[in-house]
Amino acid sequence: MRLRKVKGAMDKVNESTYTIVDPEQYKNNFNSVFGNDNEIHLEIGTGKGDFLIGMAQAFPDINFIGIEKYESVLVRMVEKLNELELKNIKVIRYDAMDIENLFNHEITTLYLNFSDPWPKVRHAKRRLTSEVFLAKYDHIFKGIPHIIQKTDNIGLYAYSICSLSKYGYTINEASLDLHSEDKFNVETEYEHKFSSKGVKINFLDATKE
Amino acid sequence: MRLRKVKGAMDKVNESTYTIVDPEQYKNNFNSVFGNDNEIHLEIGTGKGDFLIGMAQAFPDINFIGIEKYESVLVRMVEKLNELELKNIKVIRYDAMDIENLFNHEITTLYLNFSDPWPKVRHAKRRLTSEVFLAKYDHIFKGIPHIIQKTDNIGLYAYSICSLSKYGYTINEASLDLHSEDKFNVETEYEHKFSSKGVKINFLDATKE
Repeated sequence: MRLRKVKGAMDKVNESTYTIVDPEQYKNNFNSVFGNDNEIHLEIGTGKGDFLIGMAQAFPDINFIGIEKYESVLVRMVEKLNELELKNIKVIRYDAMDIENLFNHEITTLYLNFSDPWPKVRHAKRRLTSEVFLAKYDHIFKGIPHIIQKTDNIGLYAYSICSLSKYGYTINEASLDLHSEDKFNVETEYEHKFSSKGVKINFLDATKE
Repeated sequence: MRLRKVKGAMDKVNESTYTIVDPEQYKNNFNSVFGNDNEIHLEIGTGKGDFLIGMAQAFPDINFIGIEKYESVLVRMVEKLNELELKNIKVIRYDAMDIENLFNHEITTLYLNFSDPWPKVRHAKRRLTSEVFLAKYDHIFKGIPHIIQKTDNIGLYAYSICSLSKYGYTINEASLDLHSEDKFNVETEYEHKFSSKGVKINFLDATKE
């Protein structure tokens, strides 16, 4: 995604009641943010937020946290959230590279939607399903690790299947054309735009026992 | 594939020196057919044979066996073989459903190329990567089970990934566009025809430790 710098984005993000401004203080205690013991699902690269907001609306008994590296993107999600009254969604401006500093066995499901494919082989470790990241995720998952990925990038998809499989994940569900299936699905902004142009969406659901 | 009945096909198949006519007598002893101790690779649904003949020519130190249910198809492969002098390839007219009656821990690699996708859910068990067949393959593999699949059918491909993964296989390699990759590949007749029309070929390589 090409980023346009948004003036005052960081301030706008930090001013929202939906933003966890100093998130590392909640490590080991993220449920206190929501004031309940419900499951916490995480989206890394939550972007402009359509997916996570839709999920939070559809599943009021699940807590959702979105992290996003770029405040210029996250500010768009915050603007949408500020118009809504949702108790089960929070956002954090954060780099996934440091994710194990944020959560300590507190997440039950991780969503990776249309992540950067990093197509060059020498950048493979930067892909969010590389062994480097899967090892970090081991620290954040509570119970059985559970990853759900959507991507239109066939290289990233094939890579993810192999990387997850080699790391001990079982691929429970897979689809090379998610929108052709009769399956509940909340679209991301990107997904909405590209699937309407005929681009096929790849999907996988994986767990590690 | 729509089958055209070929007159005298069974006789022609049985007359070829490439055909193992009474194959179950070689159970436990298939290496004696080739007169060496080289690995034996198997293709189920070998069709008109272009893939297996190409592989046999490329890898003279591997023995290849192709099984095919329909003599009307197999006869085309036999006609091609009869024009060649290859010591490392044999064919068998056989139904894969009974495969565990044929081999007893004698196969090191299994190829499943463009198998029938059996798209209806109630026919899922007939797919050659269903749990039913994976259990049969456990009896035929020598050492680490190793399956290589190519298909243009995205439903069968996604199904295979999940079925193999749940059965304990690791997906070592995957591609959603095999022909875009710099990888040695012998095409099947079907693959040649459809990939030249722009159909993408899906590929996977899986092993079970």
